[in-house]
Amino acid sequence: MVNETQQSCSASSSSRSDGGSSSGSESSKDNSRCSTPVLDADRHERLREKMRRRQEAGDKWFSLEFFPPRTANAAVNLISRFDRMGAGGPLFIDVTWHPAGDPGSDKETSSMIIANTAVNYCGLETILHMTCCNQTKDDITGHLQKAKRLGLKNIMALRGDPVGEEWEEEVDGFNYAVDLVKHIRSEFDDYFDICVAGYPKGHPEAESYEADLRHLKEKVFAGADFIITQLFFRSETFLKFMKDCQAIGITCPIIPGIFPIQGYHSLRQLVKLSKLEVPQEIKDVIEPIKDNDAAIRNYGVELAVSMCRELLDSGMVHGLHFYTLNREVATTEVLKRLGLWNEDPRRPLPWAVSAHPKRRVEDVRPIFWASRPKSYIYRTQEWDDFPNGRWGNSSSPAFGELRDYYLFYLKSKSPREELLKMWGEELTGEESVFEVFTCYITGEPNRNGHKVTCMPWNDDPLATETNLLKDQLEKVNRRGILTINSQPNINGKPSTDPIVGWGPSGGYVFQKAYLEFFASSEIVMALLKVLKKYELRVNYHIVNVKGQNITNAPDLQPNAVTWGIFPGREIIQPTVVDPVSFLYWKDEAFALWIEQWAKLYEEESPSRMIIQYIHDNYYLVNLVDNDFPLENCLWQVVDDTFELLN
Amino acid sequence: MVNETQQSCSASSSSRSDGGSSSGSESSKDNSRCSTPVLDADRHERLREKMRRRQEAGDKWFSLEFFPPRTANAAVNLISRFDRMGAGGPLFIDVTWHPAGDPGSDKETSSMIIANTAVNYCGLETILHMTCCNQTKDDITGHLQKAKRLGLKNIMALRGDPVGEEWEEEVDGFNYAVDLVKHIRSEFDDYFDICVAGYPKGHPEAESYEADLRHLKEKVFAGADFIITQLFFRSETFLKFMKDCQAIGITCPIIPGIFPIQGYHSLRQLVKLSKLEVPQEIKDVIEPIKDNDAAIRNYGVELAVSMCRELLDSGMVHGLHFYTLNREVATTEVLKRLGLWNEDPRRPLPWAVSAHPKRRVEDVRPIFWASRPKSYIYRTQEWDDFPNGRWGNSSSPAFGELRDYYLFYLKSKSPREELLKMWGEELTGEESVFEVFTCYITGEPNRNGHKVTCMPWNDDPLATETNLLKDQLEKVNRRGILTINSQPNINGKPSTDPIVGWGPSGGYVFQKAYLEFFASSEIVMALLKVLKKYELRVNYHIVNVKGQNITNAPDLQPNAVTWGIFPGREIIQPTVVDPVSFLYWKDEAFALWIEQWAKLYEEESPSRMIIQYIHDNYYLVNLVDNDFPLENCLWQVVDDTFELLN
Repeated sequence: MVNETQQSCSASSSSRSDGGSSSGSESSKDNSRCSTPVLDADRHERLREKMRRRQEAGDKWFSLEFFPPRTANAAVNLISRFDRMGAGGPLFIDVTWHPAGDPGSDKETSSMIIANTAVNYCGLETILHMTCCNQTKDDITGHLQKAKRLGLKNIMALRGDPVGEEWEEEVDGFNYAVDLVKHIRSEFDDYFDICVAGYPKGHPEAESYEADLRHLKEKVFAGADFIITQLFFRSETFLKFMKDCQAIGITCPIIPGIFPIQGYHSLRQLVKLSKLEVPQEIKDVIEPIKDNDAAIRNYGVELAVSMCRELLDSGMVHGLHFYTLNREVATTEVLKRLGLWNEDPRRPLPWAVSAHPKRRVEDVRPIFWASRPKSYIYRTQEWDDFPNGRWGNSSSPAFGELRDYYLFYLKSKSPREELLKMWGEELTGEESVFEVFTCYITGEPNRNGHKVTCMPWNDDPLATETNLLKDQLEKVNRRGILTINSQPNINGKPSTDPIVGWGPSGGYVFQKAYLEFFASSEIVMALLKVLKKYELRVNYHIVNVKGQNITNAPDLQPNAVTWGIFPGREIIQPTVVDPVSFLYWKDEAFALWIEQWAKLYEEESPSRMIIQYIHDNYYLVNLVDNDFPLENCLWQVVDDTFELLN
Repeated sequence: MVNETQQSCSASSSSRSDGGSSSGSESSKDNSRCSTPVLDADRHERLREKMRRRQEAGDKWFSLEFFPPRTANAAVNLISRFDRMGAGGPLFIDVTWHPAGDPGSDKETSSMIIANTAVNYCGLETILHMTCCNQTKDDITGHLQKAKRLGLKNIMALRGDPVGEEWEEEVDGFNYAVDLVKHIRSEFDDYFDICVAGYPKGHPEAESYEADLRHLKEKVFAGADFIITQLFFRSETFLKFMKDCQAIGITCPIIPGIFPIQGYHSLRQLVKLSKLEVPQEIKDVIEPIKDNDAAIRNYGVELAVSMCRELLDSGMVHGLHFYTLNREVATTEVLKRLGLWNEDPRRPLPWAVSAHPKRRVEDVRPIFWASRPKSYIYRTQEWDDFPNGRWGNSSSPAFGELRDYYLFYLKSKSPREELLKMWGEELTGEESVFEVFTCYITGEPNRNGHKVTCMPWNDDPLATETNLLKDQLEKVNRRGILTINSQPNINGKPSTDPIVGWGPSGGYVFQKAYLEFFASSEIVMALLKVLKKYELRVNYHIVNVKGQNITNAPDLQPNAVTWGIFPGREIIQPTVVDPVSFLYWKDEAFALWIEQWAKLYEEESPSRMIIQYIHDNYYLVNLVDNDFPLENCLWQVVDDTFELLN
């Protein structure tokens, strides 16, 4: 009877336990422990496995297609869009390959670099398109090697458009997408997941629909893992195509490409490029409203929603691929109406994870970069292994220097004029700097009526969690304790808590209270006297730009400040205050005064000199209250300090 | 001003931060993260460093000398004594070298194996004595290699006693301890800490006191790290010797050897061997009471205490070395009266750590071996690395087989006759087994008037912590839920809590409730139905001797059931329920029924068949309540199970 119940222990471990003699000392040599916490299966599976798992679970998904931007500013905006649309929970995004735009180069607008940024800095599973015609094998191999090096794991293998009017086969080159698929498999074995294109109406250049289906089958049999289709206008088109594919033995996933009509001109252009015909019933609706963008978009959304519903209801479709044209509104609207948009994104960890395969196991980071995760990823990109389970005694964390403040994915979203409005066209003294910090905290407009929505250390408005501390933060910033990072103490809130929760449900999350700020040496001297009273309770690190460092941390050990306890899992402690990393963060934190703020002003101008003075003379302080079950004592520490100063 | 305050950040990290350019991507290659939590510096320092640190901190210490036992039974007792006396907190113990007892062999009574057991199984810092006369270099090297392989790190280098009456120099052999010191340093570099003997009255064979001091200096200059002296009867003797040593340039620690007189005969024998003269004033006291052991011991304790006080008060002595003669009472009494005995041993981790250098970083173990730590160490002795920070996905933990139930350090302390009295001369059915379990829990005598002080799975009486659960445990054992391991849930008690505390002070410890038991398949079937109601809250593993395994653990991941949060440190999680290890523990847990219990009875006897029946048909069950902040639900689970059965 009992044997008939759930047997969820894997066969391999049962057999190991049956044949006990095989577990002797001999085999202990290959006792290589993987300390990977499988907190989030998404981080550990390849794309085709994620698809399979989602399909098996009956869990519908979506993906988003983007093209590389033309300008550096557009790149900054696209990355913000990745962050926002990534929150909706796409299974992957893909980035098209623009042969004219030097797609494999290191330019910030290249396909390669945009895909790299999506994977590494935005944490998105990403497919990089790649075309093969008019390129040498060596070029292609070079691109693939570079993609692999950057952590890209998925390629959409395409032929690409011919250069001239007529298509001519090249003798030694790649002539068809199938050649590229074969090349990837022969040169990179099973490393990449490969996607190929399917044409529900047949490729415009194919001899026939049937011939095109046979080409598709060749691509799949050459090693493609799944198919994304060209856009189409009727669900029947796709469903027939899918049945025809299955009939000739194509069994891999086939994902319909959805194109929400967003405007008259974009539709016309796309139709021209793809050589598709727009059905008469759609033309009939659009023509009369062609100058009314909003009306067309509404119609497009309506049309897409009903077509997607038909596809999903067919039971044959498990995922939907959206041609976004780099726009947010229409696609997001369609997804929300379909119920596919993730309205309550659960964070697997308190910080945004990177999708680079070598960072799969990473689950601990210093708290200092909490608001600058992309900078953290950049400064640790050369690491070969990443801390997990523990940060450890990082006697040599070897952070890369941050000199490249111009890098588009590290840039402020706001242009210089806006920053000046927020942070002051002209500063009159340290107090005007206190005011900027205070306005950022309160959300109130500054004396010129502008809201301060970002700071050099934080490109976004105050986090919801920090809002819990708003009143106290306002008070201390007014008096020159210039806070740049903080968290409240949490003594076991459910992991599903909308503000401080993270990780799987059913768990409990904890935090030690943390406060990080710049302050004058006068404040710091008083603070040090006050801290003597809190010697065992509060750990502190205090450093100035020259690296003079004062701390009571034992043996330079890290202090865990965020951790979670989950059912059936080991403890996860994703955030630490690491004394050694703090000295690297210090360089960046001080440099931001100059790079982001002082440089807004003319050299030698009074405003610039005020920022320079703060940079040269203030201290960067962090405080941790170790007694997380008690009321946060850090506000008392600060109050005591002000009292001593009076 | 601030620069004059505490600068506790090490110079190296300051300079690293100053010369920021050296921290670029080049150096990240040697980014080898040490995940060692320095929870307990004692585990990470070599003996001479511990001495130095204790001396610098003004922290007095003691050490204990033992000789190897003559019989296997005596070895079992000596290991229990190591465990008990180890709790008093010796800085180290040492084990003498008995040339006549095949000291380097694998016999359970050899010096080598006793030292090995002290280090690896009792977790004691240990010095192994080694003599060199009448041995070849190869023999000596062989012994040293073996010692190193076993994890011994300290050698007391001695000449040894001559074989005949007269001492004769061997041409190619070792003639003096200094030869052995040189040999160790030349063959093993700085691996071992080396101790040598000092003679406060001069070596009996030395030409003179001064000549002997010069020999001692030679030994130190050849590489010895510290000196332990021969016993003496007056503190002045030692203090003069120490000054004389310092006068000729001996600066290493010199530890006085203390011999509490414990009996007339042992004193006479020792004096004869060491060729020392007992001062007249001592003889005068002892002779009249020579047949009264208790009186002599009391006097010996008195004498030792006052001499030790004089030594400590001199300010020249930081540690005391006790010649225990393998006895507990007198030495313990002296140490308690001196205030050196650790009355409140703080546990660095919830389980006893091993002192083998390769286990230094180990800080996670499966909970199953909580009462059988020596068996756990034995079964993992071939591992090359030990889990720390996380247990990890131990898909191949490769535990060694436990076939060697006869090994003296795994043996029950109780002989067969005692076990029969406790567990029943004759069993009449499964209920008589339930009774044995119940008596062990309650501490009440069984129906024949014998207390059950140990069980096959637990060689000691119920742990204080388990006592917290006594009432519930009694109730369930009576009804056939035969518990072998359990812990209550703890939601943040101070780390100094006398019952459940561990680790440094100022921290908080946590536990998930745990219950492990054997039960019939009838009970297990009902239990499984009940567990459906607790699906997300309770993790379970249920297995029978054949390895049929039922669990709801996700992906065979370990579940942390003990963890601690400390000031300025990362999270420590020393105990997990690991599904894979459970299948290895299962073999041992079931085998103990047969090896320790069934085999007490004649083959084919009804008693033996009852145990065999349980072994063949019962299931081993473990339950974890993940909701540690709520009231433990496992008792409700068991109650529901019994209710369902009724």
